[in-house]
Amino acid sequence: MVWCSGWRLASAVSNAGGLGLIGSGSMHPDVLRDHIRKCRKATEKPFGVNIPLLYPQIDEIVGIVIEEKVPVIFTSAGSPSKYTSRLKDKGILVAHVVSNLKFALKSQDAGVDAIVAEGFEAGGHNGREETTTLTLIPLIRKCIDLPLIAAGGIAGGESMLAAFALGAEGVQLGTRFAVSEESSAHLAFKQYILSAGDGNTALSLKKLAPVRLMKNHFWEQIQALEERGASAEELNALLGKGRAKMGMFEGDLIEGELEIGQAAALIKEIQPVSTIINEIIEEFNLAAAGLSKLKF
Amino acid sequence: MVWCSGWRLASAVSNAGGLGLIGSGSMHPDVLRDHIRKCRKATEKPFGVNIPLLYPQIDEIVGIVIEEKVPVIFTSAGSPSKYTSRLKDKGILVAHVVSNLKFALKSQDAGVDAIVAEGFEAGGHNGREETTTLTLIPLIRKCIDLPLIAAGGIAGGESMLAAFALGAEGVQLGTRFAVSEESSAHLAFKQYILSAGDGNTALSLKKLAPVRLMKNHFWEQIQALEERGASAEELNALLGKGRAKMGMFEGDLIEGELEIGQAAALIKEIQPVSTIINEIIEEFNLAAAGLSKLKF
Repeated sequence: MVWCSGWRLASAVSNAGGLGLIGSGSMHPDVLRDHIRKCRKATEKPFGVNIPLLYPQIDEIVGIVIEEKVPVIFTSAGSPSKYTSRLKDKGILVAHVVSNLKFALKSQDAGVDAIVAEGFEAGGHNGREETTTLTLIPLIRKCIDLPLIAAGGIAGGESMLAAFALGAEGVQLGTRFAVSEESSAHLAFKQYILSAGDGNTALSLKKLAPVRLMKNHFWEQIQALEERGASAEELNALLGKGRAKMGMFEGDLIEGELEIGQAAALIKEIQPVSTIINEIIEEFNLAAAGLSKLKF
Repeated sequence: MVWCSGWRLASAVSNAGGLGLIGSGSMHPDVLRDHIRKCRKATEKPFGVNIPLLYPQIDEIVGIVIEEKVPVIFTSAGSPSKYTSRLKDKGILVAHVVSNLKFALKSQDAGVDAIVAEGFEAGGHNGREETTTLTLIPLIRKCIDLPLIAAGGIAGGESMLAAFALGAEGVQLGTRFAVSEESSAHLAFKQYILSAGDGNTALSLKKLAPVRLMKNHFWEQIQALEERGASAEELNALLGKGRAKMGMFEGDLIEGELEIGQAAALIKEIQPVSTIINEIIEEFNLAAAGLSKLKF
């Protein structure tokens, strides 16, 4: 949720009954502190911060969320053993994002409070195993008793219900909220997401770190390089610096890197967060009532 | 289900309450006729035949299923407009397998009775869009009123329930039945599937026709070629002829092509079909009862 989830989106989600997360991955430490303080002013409900553990100034970031008494931290993209106990010692709840069973077990060993299991269909950075949400959730559920939050491909009440059927107790939505009114993504990017059908995203840059992107001119350039077997160095040279900001925050749909999930194909409208959450709950209840009539 | 689903598996599925399918993709026309006749002797229930429309002797195959009065045909890997009306004129029910919304709409226009929507996690040949079952089913459900059968990643009652939550009315299982006692796959292949964890399959040969394989020495050779940007010709030369038979039917786990879905990671036992179906129904009912207590 880089470039999408600042204090405005996070507080709106928390105010509407979800747990809003500030995405720190695209923020300088001082910017993150500012967002945490603004979020606190905008909601009386709990909210959290997502911290990619590969963040260059990771120690400073962890220090800030502790100082600012953020009640919940979601860590991702790194080993859960490094910061979980430091955060938990301060009374902070910790969830770790994984894309395979091995890291789910490592997260459990590290003492996390919950696991987010994210499938291949999710936007942005993603696992090398390419395991989809439908396969990943029951696999982890069979081995782990911790609260399990499903992520990847979940955009409505039906997919939330499906995740619960698979054994999850919660869902994490990225793409749907990236297109919300309160998302800080550029309007041009939001509108481009609305135009997406199935097959308009692809897991890309696998020789660097796999990332799901919306197809555009920049993606076509990657694709051409990958088809001729380009090296990681060549791909890095093309990627350069600041591509995600250029695309998602500044709205350059041609040269920008546009991180988004397959669920884009299911979204047809830019809506306020409160409408989104109400719609999802309504769809969930309706679909659950339908299922409750089935028995074999 | 090439090399897995002959009359023995198909009749066992039909006898246990499912709709068994004979996979014609790996059969010569006369072999298919023999399997249909043996299947009819082994069950009084309806069964079907799956026909990949790219099959070289396709007209002969279609002629045989009509002559033998097979009641249900599942077509795949080709245009639904070519054979649907010919089959339906003979009173045969037709389902067509798709991996995207565009072909679901084409199937509807062609007059099929049902649509099988197959996600990225499915074994064997697969769509270029890489859309997962969790995203594909609600997308097609929103646009199409025909009976919808979900395929890809479904191996147990929880995932069957999830598919129903997404709007499907049925599920198609490949991988779970490929590992059944009645499957004609080689025992060594079945045992190898049982050893699979998440990340042990991959969608491969994308420059030819994308196919999900279990990782083995043959897959490593493909992977090495693909990483250096090998052409379709080079990949075809490596693939050669008869690789799937060598792996799946003859049990050559090193040089053979091993088609299987991500659901392999969820399967831990070779079971008779009747046990599999009873287990799935039991899990479905249990999971559905759990969900019915939820309301937000």
